[in-house]
Amino acid sequence: MKKGIIPAISGLLAGFLTAGVFFANTDMGEKTVANASSDAEKVYVPFGKQDEYYLFASGGHSGQLFVYGVPSMRRIRTVPVFTPDAATGYGWDKKSKEMLGGYTWGDLHHPAFSETKGEYDGKYLFATDVANNRAAVMDLKTFTVEDILNVPNTSGPHCAAFVTENTEYLFLPTRFPVPINREYAKLDDFSTKYKGVMSAVTFNEQTKKLELAYQVALPPWSYDLSDAGKKTSADWAVLTTYNTEEATTNLEINASQKDRDYIVLFNWKELEKMVKEGKYDTVNGAKIVNPAKHKGAIYLVPVAKSPHGVDVTPDGKRFIASGKLAPAMTVFSFEKAFEAIKNKKFDGEKYGIPVLDYASVMEREVNPPNALGPLHTQFDDKGFAYTTMFISSEIVKWNVETGETVDRVPVQYSPGHSVAAEGDSVSPDGKYIVALNKIAKDSYLSVGPSHPESMQLIDLTGSKMKVIQTAPVDPEPHYAQIIKADKIKTIEVLPKDEKRPNSVWKQEDARIERKGNEVHVYGIAMRSKFIFDGKAERKDVVTVKQGDKVIFHLTNIDLDEDITHGFAVNAYNQNMEIQPGETKTMEFVADKAGTYPIYCTNFCSALHQEMSGYLLVEPK
Amino acid sequence: MKKGIIPAISGLLAGFLTAGVFFANTDMGEKTVANASSDAEKVYVPFGKQDEYYLFASGGHSGQLFVYGVPSMRRIRTVPVFTPDAATGYGWDKKSKEMLGGYTWGDLHHPAFSETKGEYDGKYLFATDVANNRAAVMDLKTFTVEDILNVPNTSGPHCAAFVTENTEYLFLPTRFPVPINREYAKLDDFSTKYKGVMSAVTFNEQTKKLELAYQVALPPWSYDLSDAGKKTSADWAVLTTYNTEEATTNLEINASQKDRDYIVLFNWKELEKMVKEGKYDTVNGAKIVNPAKHKGAIYLVPVAKSPHGVDVTPDGKRFIASGKLAPAMTVFSFEKAFEAIKNKKFDGEKYGIPVLDYASVMEREVNPPNALGPLHTQFDDKGFAYTTMFISSEIVKWNVETGETVDRVPVQYSPGHSVAAEGDSVSPDGKYIVALNKIAKDSYLSVGPSHPESMQLIDLTGSKMKVIQTAPVDPEPHYAQIIKADKIKTIEVLPKDEKRPNSVWKQEDARIERKGNEVHVYGIAMRSKFIFDGKAERKDVVTVKQGDKVIFHLTNIDLDEDITHGFAVNAYNQNMEIQPGETKTMEFVADKAGTYPIYCTNFCSALHQEMSGYLLVEPK
Repeated sequence: MKKGIIPAISGLLAGFLTAGVFFANTDMGEKTVANASSDAEKVYVPFGKQDEYYLFASGGHSGQLFVYGVPSMRRIRTVPVFTPDAATGYGWDKKSKEMLGGYTWGDLHHPAFSETKGEYDGKYLFATDVANNRAAVMDLKTFTVEDILNVPNTSGPHCAAFVTENTEYLFLPTRFPVPINREYAKLDDFSTKYKGVMSAVTFNEQTKKLELAYQVALPPWSYDLSDAGKKTSADWAVLTTYNTEEATTNLEINASQKDRDYIVLFNWKELEKMVKEGKYDTVNGAKIVNPAKHKGAIYLVPVAKSPHGVDVTPDGKRFIASGKLAPAMTVFSFEKAFEAIKNKKFDGEKYGIPVLDYASVMEREVNPPNALGPLHTQFDDKGFAYTTMFISSEIVKWNVETGETVDRVPVQYSPGHSVAAEGDSVSPDGKYIVALNKIAKDSYLSVGPSHPESMQLIDLTGSKMKVIQTAPVDPEPHYAQIIKADKIKTIEVLPKDEKRPNSVWKQEDARIERKGNEVHVYGIAMRSKFIFDGKAERKDVVTVKQGDKVIFHLTNIDLDEDITHGFAVNAYNQNMEIQPGETKTMEFVADKAGTYPIYCTNFCSALHQEMSGYLLVEPK
Repeated sequence: MKKGIIPAISGLLAGFLTAGVFFANTDMGEKTVANASSDAEKVYVPFGKQDEYYLFASGGHSGQLFVYGVPSMRRIRTVPVFTPDAATGYGWDKKSKEMLGGYTWGDLHHPAFSETKGEYDGKYLFATDVANNRAAVMDLKTFTVEDILNVPNTSGPHCAAFVTENTEYLFLPTRFPVPINREYAKLDDFSTKYKGVMSAVTFNEQTKKLELAYQVALPPWSYDLSDAGKKTSADWAVLTTYNTEEATTNLEINASQKDRDYIVLFNWKELEKMVKEGKYDTVNGAKIVNPAKHKGAIYLVPVAKSPHGVDVTPDGKRFIASGKLAPAMTVFSFEKAFEAIKNKKFDGEKYGIPVLDYASVMEREVNPPNALGPLHTQFDDKGFAYTTMFISSEIVKWNVETGETVDRVPVQYSPGHSVAAEGDSVSPDGKYIVALNKIAKDSYLSVGPSHPESMQLIDLTGSKMKVIQTAPVDPEPHYAQIIKADKIKTIEVLPKDEKRPNSVWKQEDARIERKGNEVHVYGIAMRSKFIFDGKAERKDVVTVKQGDKVIFHLTNIDLDEDITHGFAVNAYNQNMEIQPGETKTMEFVADKAGTYPIYCTNFCSALHQEMSGYLLVEPK
């Protein structure tokens, strides 16, 4: 393999890539079977015990988040984020329906925990939607989404949401260049009219709302992955880019022509200052900074072609980029970069953004023998880095200070990201790493042509890395984060808040009020009945006229753990979940005349089956 | 506890029921921890090995099916059935969108395998939708839904789909009485205008279509669970009913007034004959048999109040009903029932249907001490029955011949159904039973007020039953079936069928054709690019005019295992999966002008990220 300053892709490697995925010899996997008994014990969490960590995996084009326990690798929960979820009624009740804004799917990529002083604080989880250009925040007290922000002027915020050291910002760089506001423009005008936009989003903990602080108009390239600085580099952040060739067709070939692409290195404190000083244009209500006009915050660092991951070391001193079409990881020094900026060691400009001199910023190229397709790097508590090798299907452990390879473990197959326990924080735990494999092939009982993805848990505590559990996962976990279980403090029952709008806590207060064509039902769900009208002969029946808008405001007055009620209207395509102590609103137009059973969908008691009523719709 | 011919509910028991779920002391659970090492080994399936059984769990109000491996209890796959699924694009491509018919959720209850001679044959899986009154069939070669049938005249087919011994019929009895065709009728007219309708559905293996054969107009009661006869009882089937009180409000209290409800016992061969002879009325295109007018096929068997499960023994000689408000299981004899019918041992009629004399049909009441809330019964290969006890949170093993209790195991908590390996076939395996617990409470890391459900795997091979694995599951598995892994033969790649309509296999055949306002794209998805127009300069770009209807016909020409492509249009809320060798169609109106990236959502190669293009929509 040719080893230059910028490693070029070899013919052999190019052959592998166009052939796509190739499957490593599974002999390596068989070896893990030998010592099965002790591995079995390591991952076994019997009833009465609980897992040590939560793993939150992005659900990719499911639009949702999957919650697993580690080390058992059991899937505990699906949390709906960008896609409606029938099981919980997410997208049916008024609040979640409005949050989703008519979109029926999303493509949830990289989730990120909120941080305090660079440590996961267990309060919130952020995620972005590549499909329909959104950001979301989930409250870890309730495991429900609090807010969704539609991001203007951009298309495919892929590598977000990564957060700064004290959750000041999430940065959402866009994967697909489009004209500002996604306006129509010919591809012949790509270099002049298309832009790559990075959005800086803040989270207001009081209002629980996400807000667009500002955007930066970057060159028309694809922005891929990213990380925030830490400690001495805390004011900075890094993003990888590809297609700096600005190809407009057949990117498979045309976006891999040049030997180098870039890392975008930016100082968000400086950008914040520029915005305060009015150094932006307003487009579509968004403040957009133009780095060619307002200099001093953004630089480009040359990197081996088509980089994918870029990861900041826990001490904040280095950032490591992996070129998926290059065989090597490149270690860059923040300190060297700061020096180069100070001394203006520039190698020209691109779109008015200074390009730093590669040799002045690069510290080391790390090229483990026969390792192919490095993608992402995670860290432990002892100064080691762990890089996934997509093509050679393995994880390579290496020393960040020396570049020395210290261990390798095969995984099955084609790992994209990996995630270490607390691996993106300033103090990783070093106990486990999970490989997020893109290809499962024959790992599990076959479920037809469409296979699951596969996660493999690797024990880092022994003298050698060892795969100790293999878990299928629905498509498609792009990234995950792992947090210590005791950092998350959920609430089990929502508070009995008698002042909450539309809530009803006493049977005699349940009532049906007509306002013109609107029928408001202020009702109760309890074991094991619905009470819509506390004074009626049939308290669990609602009668309306065809064409009326029916608005159900329902409160679950059972303040007991795990007593969730469902509320479904048969043949009216309506269902929602009401958690203990919760009030929810559902509204729909009763446009079909007839007799429609109402029933509880969430098993709640021995008489759950009897928890039903009727919606009677009198014909016009 | 009072023990009569029909056991009445005791005051103590009634107290438990109105209090809802109660949590058994978890000391019992702690005991299972002691021998963790050997249990761990029993359930551990390392990479390179596969599970022994598939478990298919109904996904309840998620509308989907969950596929697990046994004994690992790992969730391998979510198969979308009644609800759109963003991850696979189910509900976005033309075929699945039309099958779903505008419904965006379902409530999938009891799944059932197709059978040949009473054995699971591994060919198809059937399921019903309580929410929107549908039945579905899934092909186990591809793990995809082939057909969905909208069932008229009924509301909430709960206890289906159970199949007869050679999959002649699935029977879909309705849970909610409604007027025929769900027409509007006052609840004061409940006994005269409302009906409980049972639907007999056939599956045509040639056309892969479900068809409504006939319906039966039953009394206005709620039909709950059911089973088909086997061997000597193969022409018969049984359903439980509750609310024979015909209460129209507050069923929690009013549907539990009488000491007895009924099992409906019917001869489907006889019904088939009646239909052939024209003994039916046609309503809404459906043939409806009125059992009061056409006698000889349907009988009522008195049973302890509010029964839930009814299960036929593997030898087909007995059926066992469990009264959720009674402490006992009741064993009935088919032979005795046939005798009673022959000798007209009737105890009056209900709605013209003869009621069999209880003592003439009943064989034994089984009342294990301190066991409360029996719901469902499964079987092993040695003549033992296993009944879930919802209130006392346990599974009781007992001898069907003698009624003797031989073992009990606590489960956590509140089991509804349980499912044994091949447990509904004529030859259960007897190795495992899985408790489907309604309440997880503190079994797993907390995920907020809304907890998962919980499945527990019980080893039946030792001298005592033992819980050896505990697995969370998304809401809400009402039932499951377990089949030997080697019975299912999936295909990994769909055949290269060059005559398939709209398919394109060569790059030069990819083309874009305009027909008036419609733009048809006949394209290819392959590693790692889209080809929409084989002759264009930019082969991966589609340009249309605002308001055009765009129809993408895409073929995945990668005929390799696990190389699935996705096809998404950014900001247009569109995504679908195209399996290896598959052709799929997606159509939408390009009503928004602008620039919209197209990208592959299913990771397919090292250059997956580059597999993209543009939809350009010129403004009007």
